[in-house]
Amino acid sequence: MYIPTFDDVKIARERITPYIHKTPVLTSSYLDDLTGAKLFFKCENFQKAGAFKVRGASNAVFGLSDELAAKGVATHSSGNHALSLAYAAGRRGIPCHVVMPRTAPQAKKDAVIGYGGIITECEPSTTSREAVFAEVQAATGADFVHPYNDPRVIAGQATCSLELLEQTGGLDAVIAPIGGGGMISGTCLALSNVAPDTKIYAAEPKNADDAYRSFKAGYIIADDAPDTVADGLKVPLKDLTWHFVSNHVSDILIATEDEIVDAMKLIWQRMKIVMEPSSAVPLATILKNKDLFAGKRVGVIITGGNVDMDKLPWMKN
Amino acid sequence: MYIPTFDDVKIARERITPYIHKTPVLTSSYLDDLTGAKLFFKCENFQKAGAFKVRGASNAVFGLSDELAAKGVATHSSGNHALSLAYAAGRRGIPCHVVMPRTAPQAKKDAVIGYGGIITECEPSTTSREAVFAEVQAATGADFVHPYNDPRVIAGQATCSLELLEQTGGLDAVIAPIGGGGMISGTCLALSNVAPDTKIYAAEPKNADDAYRSFKAGYIIADDAPDTVADGLKVPLKDLTWHFVSNHVSDILIATEDEIVDAMKLIWQRMKIVMEPSSAVPLATILKNKDLFAGKRVGVIITGGNVDMDKLPWMKN
Repeated sequence: MYIPTFDDVKIARERITPYIHKTPVLTSSYLDDLTGAKLFFKCENFQKAGAFKVRGASNAVFGLSDELAAKGVATHSSGNHALSLAYAAGRRGIPCHVVMPRTAPQAKKDAVIGYGGIITECEPSTTSREAVFAEVQAATGADFVHPYNDPRVIAGQATCSLELLEQTGGLDAVIAPIGGGGMISGTCLALSNVAPDTKIYAAEPKNADDAYRSFKAGYIIADDAPDTVADGLKVPLKDLTWHFVSNHVSDILIATEDEIVDAMKLIWQRMKIVMEPSSAVPLATILKNKDLFAGKRVGVIITGGNVDMDKLPWMKN
Repeated sequence: MYIPTFDDVKIARERITPYIHKTPVLTSSYLDDLTGAKLFFKCENFQKAGAFKVRGASNAVFGLSDELAAKGVATHSSGNHALSLAYAAGRRGIPCHVVMPRTAPQAKKDAVIGYGGIITECEPSTTSREAVFAEVQAATGADFVHPYNDPRVIAGQATCSLELLEQTGGLDAVIAPIGGGGMISGTCLALSNVAPDTKIYAAEPKNADDAYRSFKAGYIIADDAPDTVADGLKVPLKDLTWHFVSNHVSDILIATEDEIVDAMKLIWQRMKIVMEPSSAVPLATILKNKDLFAGKRVGVIITGGNVDMDKLPWMKN
């Protein structure tokens, strides 16, 4: 297991800068009053492909030798990583193979195809996904870019917190959602090097609290098919992300489904931005742990903005 | 009728700067590809009180002598002007009286109260509104700030296009929605002085096309209770705004309800911002008049972001 270093982050930043946005940091006096903290929202919902994941994906794609790149990249994902990898591969002009359950929403398939990705469908089971993915890789020789358990991906995600810190100046804490742990691991990698006193919090849905339970237990606990509105956060920690979480995270905070949806709606209404349910988990946990953040300067990572406008979670339909 | 001058705009800008945001200009490569134009979205949805109207309201409120200010300000509005005037009055620490139909949505009343406004309810008719408003004014001596037919308000709105032009550099055209014509009049006032070659387009719902018909006829035509999803654009032109529209606007373009809703959803999905139906009318008209804008640098004013999240126009409920 290769653990990415801060040098990898510096290389990643230089490598991906031409292909990504330097996203803005927004503030809200209303939410500051409500929480008692000074919140700095790093808006990766405005990022290329609509999510921070384009950072890690671009670092993987543009770090390949020409010879390897010619065979393309491959992944299994029906979410933002698939979109992001397709976007990055498109910018380099190489193929991107995505294995996706045939039951995934057509809109997600269309989005990947829209970025030039090539979809191979599998059955909605881990066994089928792994078998189909092995076939695709054997047939193409494409380089596997894991959604989060990949040092190139983590080094890419780390560039987000570096930017944030430059934009805001010193922060007492940074909080980000946790699913597989890619963003949190990148945050740990960046901040432990440039701002070791800044505390790192991970925010997780109670309905998919495997990282929370892993953190408390001291070893990885993986859930089987958790169900949460924050659909980007259903995946479990892996060895590489567990390394960063277990070594650098101050605490993992959890929020219920209602708290997540309320926080999401609040951000849409008050900040006038479109972001995913997953991105609302940090504010949901800040609102129920006000004492922890009161009077503090807190970076909040808004991870993405790819939402099905026809199925907003507060609409009853 | 006093017609505001460019000097009034310069004074307004200095006066209101401490109380408003310098809102960002966003771009979208997707929407540029779709329209063939280079679009610069001036995001007044991120403005204080959620709308550009805080510019004009602040100019009126902070331009009052201490003696007049002590009696407060008053208006009739159930929309962004009421919110904005309440916000500005709150910043100056003076009363803001708002006459609003008793049938207005509770959420709108709550929002005005949230900014410290004092609501007096009237019946939902022009007769009742005028009678109740006269009573409020007689009882308080408050200064009437009309939502748009007021030189102070128009000079305030004009600061938006000044900012936009500084942020983008030269523009071939600027397009904004038109209801009563306050924003368009401010745009005319600013651009006719600093960028006389920049064309000014107004965008209007077909279902409330009184400005379009006025413009073609050469005199003000006012509709009785037009019905459109773009509820900020139902009001008619008045003498002061007609002056600017008839002298400086290149053309008024119209869009159907479906076109407006589609454009709104497109902006939410692609730009990840929350904005009102009214703010989508410009993009809707650009999409159906591509030849007019192709290859041009076009400023698009996103006028506001105050939306009822429970009643989004593309949801069937």
